[in-house]
Amino acid sequence: MHVKILGSAAGGGFPQWNCACPNCRLLREGTFPGKARAQLQVAISSDRQSWILLNASPDLRSQINQDSDLHPRAAKRGTPITSVFLTSAELDQVLGLLSLREFQSFRVYATRSVQKILREDNSVFRTLNRVGSQVSWVDIEPNQKLTVTNPSAEREPFQLEFIALSSHFPTYVSPERSSQLCARESLLGIVVASASGARLAYFPSVPAIDAALLKHLTSADVILMDGTFWADDELIQVRGEGPTARQIGHVPISGDDGTLKRLKALRATRKIFVHINNTNPVLNESTQQFRQICEAGWELAEDGWELTL
Amino acid sequence: MHVKILGSAAGGGFPQWNCACPNCRLLREGTFPGKARAQLQVAISSDRQSWILLNASPDLRSQINQDSDLHPRAAKRGTPITSVFLTSAELDQVLGLLSLREFQSFRVYATRSVQKILREDNSVFRTLNRVGSQVSWVDIEPNQKLTVTNPSAEREPFQLEFIALSSHFPTYVSPERSSQLCARESLLGIVVASASGARLAYFPSVPAIDAALLKHLTSADVILMDGTFWADDELIQVRGEGPTARQIGHVPISGDDGTLKRLKALRATRKIFVHINNTNPVLNESTQQFRQICEAGWELAEDGWELTL
Repeated sequence: MHVKILGSAAGGGFPQWNCACPNCRLLREGTFPGKARAQLQVAISSDRQSWILLNASPDLRSQINQDSDLHPRAAKRGTPITSVFLTSAELDQVLGLLSLREFQSFRVYATRSVQKILREDNSVFRTLNRVGSQVSWVDIEPNQKLTVTNPSAEREPFQLEFIALSSHFPTYVSPERSSQLCARESLLGIVVASASGARLAYFPSVPAIDAALLKHLTSADVILMDGTFWADDELIQVRGEGPTARQIGHVPISGDDGTLKRLKALRATRKIFVHINNTNPVLNESTQQFRQICEAGWELAEDGWELTL
Repeated sequence: MHVKILGSAAGGGFPQWNCACPNCRLLREGTFPGKARAQLQVAISSDRQSWILLNASPDLRSQINQDSDLHPRAAKRGTPITSVFLTSAELDQVLGLLSLREFQSFRVYATRSVQKILREDNSVFRTLNRVGSQVSWVDIEPNQKLTVTNPSAEREPFQLEFIALSSHFPTYVSPERSSQLCARESLLGIVVASASGARLAYFPSVPAIDAALLKHLTSADVILMDGTFWADDELIQVRGEGPTARQIGHVPISGDDGTLKRLKALRATRKIFVHINNTNPVLNESTQQFRQICEAGWELAEDGWELTL
C-alpha cells in the first residue's frame, strides 16, 4: 500500500490567514524552526496507477497540481483519482470536492447523514452532478467493511473498515438539523487493509480514546493520528479565548489522558500525528514538546511524505 | 488606487486538475511558453493598509499566504482585509469566503439574490456567522453607487458602482430556485472610482457587450475584462463537446462580435484580460492569438501583478 500525505495541517492550514500567534508570525518572518503545512490530505493506492483520496481538503487543487502521480493521463480529460472517502462533513475535509467539479466521473463514499448535509443542505454540491456520468455517491455504514477494487488493480483490492467515533456534526449544521441526523454517522475513522494484510489506521479526529479504538490502533502497522492540539487549553493559552480541545472533538497529545500516554503500548512501525493546528507547539522543532513526541516514537507528518506498507 | 491581481485564471485554474488539453499538458511537462495561473482574485486599496477583495477565489488561502500586504498585523489575530464584494454566486468567485472562516470580522457585499443562494441554500456559509462579531452581510443593488471608507483611509474613500449584466444564476442553482430570485441580481460588474477620480472597471464575466457597458468601459482608466475564451466554440474544439462561450455567459475575445473588435476604441491606459480559461490559446505566448491581443493593445493578466492608478 502506498500512502501520500499531501497536506498535514488542521483546518485553516499553517500559517492560518488571520493568525499572528508566535508559530504563524515566525513562519511568515522566515525564522520558524519548522515547516508550513497545507490542510490535511491523504491519498492511497495499491499500484500507484489509481488513487483513493481520504477526505478532500480545501487545498486539493494545488495538492493535485504538485504531485504528478495525480495528473490526468488520458488524451483529453481524466484523473487517476477513482474515489473519495469522507470521514465527516467538516469543512476542512469536504470542501476539496468542489475543486473536483469539472464533469469528472468518480465515486464519493460517505455516511447517509454526511451526504444529507452536503447534498440536501448545500446546493453548491449539485455542481458535482450536473451531468449523469459525473459523481456517484455511495452510502457507507459505521462499522461496515467494504472491499474496494480499483479498475487498474483488480487483484489487489483494499478492504476499508469504517469506525464510528462518538461525536457531533460540524458547527455549521444547526441543532435542529443535527437532531434529524444519526449522530453515529457524524465522524468515522478508517482502517485500510491491503491484500497482503498491511494495515493503515486513519484517525484525523479523535474525540476520545476508548477500548474499541485501542483495538483498531493496536492491529495497525501505520497510524495517522489526530495531533490537532498539544494541550487541552491550547486555544485559550494562545488566543486568550476559545473552546478546549476536547470540547471541539480532539484528544490533546499531552496530559494524563492525552494521546502520548494512552497510546504508549502500540506496536505500529510508524505512529504519525496529522491534522496539526497552527497553534500546536510541536510544529516548532526546537521545542521540548517536539522532542517529547519524537522520544515517544511518534512522528510529525510533513506535506509531501510518501509511505509504503 | 492600488490593484493586486492575485490570480488570473477562470474556474479550475491553469492547469485544471483533470484536463490534458495541449495547454495543460505542456504546462505540466514544463515546456509551455506561458505561465500557470491561480483562480481570479483581485484586491484593491487606497493606502496599502487596508484591502478590499473583489470576489473570493477558491485559491484564496494560498493567495493571502503569498502576499505579505495581506498578512495580519495585530498581536494575536487580525487581517488588513476589511471587505469582500461579490459579483455573482459562481463557485470560482465565492468559495474563498469559506477560507476566511476563523472568527474574523469583515463585511461581505452582495445582491440579495446572491446572499439568498449562499446563506439560505448552503448551510456551509453559516460558518461565517458562528459568533456575533463575525461577518456582516451588506445588500448591494444593481446600478447602485456606494462609497466605501476603509478604517485606515478615512479621507480616501472609494466609490463603487455595480452594473447589472443580463445573465443567469450558476448551474448549481435549480431552475425552481432561480425563478424565485431576481435575474438582474445574478451578475454584476464593478466600477471603482478613487478619491482622485481614477477609474477601474472590473468585468470578469461579460455575457454581452451593450451600449451601457460600453459607456462604463469608455470612462475607465484600467479595465479588467472577461478573457475567458478566445473562440465561441473553444470548449467544443478542445474537448470534443461542451457548450459555447456565449451559452455560458462569456463573450469570446475573437470574432466579429468578440471583445477585440467591439472594444477597439477604448481610451483606457491599460486593458487587461482576466479570468482566462485553461483552454484559451492566448495562455501560450508563442501563438498568433497572443500576438493578436498584444498588437491590439491588450495585456494578459499574470498572478502577482500590481497596478497603481
